[in-house]
Amino acid sequence: MPTMYDASVPTITRALQNYIRVLEKGAAYAEAKKIEPSVLVTSRLFPDMLPLSKQVQIASDVSKGGAARLAQVEPPKYEDNEATFPELIERLRKTIKFLETLKPAQFDDGSRTVTFPTQGESKTLPGSSYLYTRVLPNVFFHCTTGYNILRHNGVEIGKGDFLGPVEG
Amino acid sequence: MPTMYDASVPTITRALQNYIRVLEKGAAYAEAKKIEPSVLVTSRLFPDMLPLSKQVQIASDVSKGGAARLAQVEPPKYEDNEATFPELIERLRKTIKFLETLKPAQFDDGSRTVTFPTQGESKTLPGSSYLYTRVLPNVFFHCTTGYNILRHNGVEIGKGDFLGPVEG
Repeated sequence: MPTMYDASVPTITRALQNYIRVLEKGAAYAEAKKIEPSVLVTSRLFPDMLPLSKQVQIASDVSKGGAARLAQVEPPKYEDNEATFPELIERLRKTIKFLETLKPAQFDDGSRTVTFPTQGESKTLPGSSYLYTRVLPNVFFHCTTGYNILRHNGVEIGKGDFLGPVEG
Repeated sequence: MPTMYDASVPTITRALQNYIRVLEKGAAYAEAKKIEPSVLVTSRLFPDMLPLSKQVQIASDVSKGGAARLAQVEPPKYEDNEATFPELIERLRKTIKFLETLKPAQFDDGSRTVTFPTQGESKTLPGSSYLYTRVLPNVFFHCTTGYNILRHNGVEIGKGDFLGPVEG
């Protein structure tokens, strides 16, 4: 049976690796079309929605925060000052490096409770519910929304970039 | 340890229930703003991207197809003829009803292989890899993209609608 480690760390790492590929295509598109890259980095799907840069930062936060809570360690804090494609890609690389420090033995069977902040409140769930109802949906939400912001701006990406290659 | 059933059926069911709530808000917005609902149902984020109706149909397909392959049963076939909010909501309700027919005993420990079509090819993966690298990312991708299409058109939805209430 896949463990809580198997279900979380490789799944999230893979999502962030695919996000890096999507951002690299965004950067290449800006260069090819002579678009100021910050136009894409600050782009949104609606005026009161968060821009691409923030989508990437939150994808990083929910990834490192979610995995760290499940492993009962403190996640690293980052400054949220990324403003370019290379900086956003580096933010995801740092997040993946942190995920690589987590060891299967730090995870339990999913019954240990996790307390987490959401919409200004503190909530508690069994780790397995936290993973499946909050962490994974949140990670994929912010990866997909960043993808959609770039797709909406004409970047030639497809679902294959989001899902990555078929591999076990 | 969460089983393959726990990791798939309730997670996907919940994503589709949240999607129904998002679509209901889209329908209410069209009515309140006197927008022809088909404008939203056929809306896209880019001309060569799939419209909202197709995002919902594919979310249904990857949900029922993914869970059915893991349970080694045939998924139901639907006609893809939904063209209104009520029809799209009904499509998701039917999909949830199918998921409810699956029993934990039909699932294994994730080692059984699964063969699935992707981009015109047939691929095989262990069930656990299939779930974490294909099914869950795919389900959340199409739920988020439908959400983003409505958000882009001004529907007042937030991530709380996408994630649903905190509950174990």
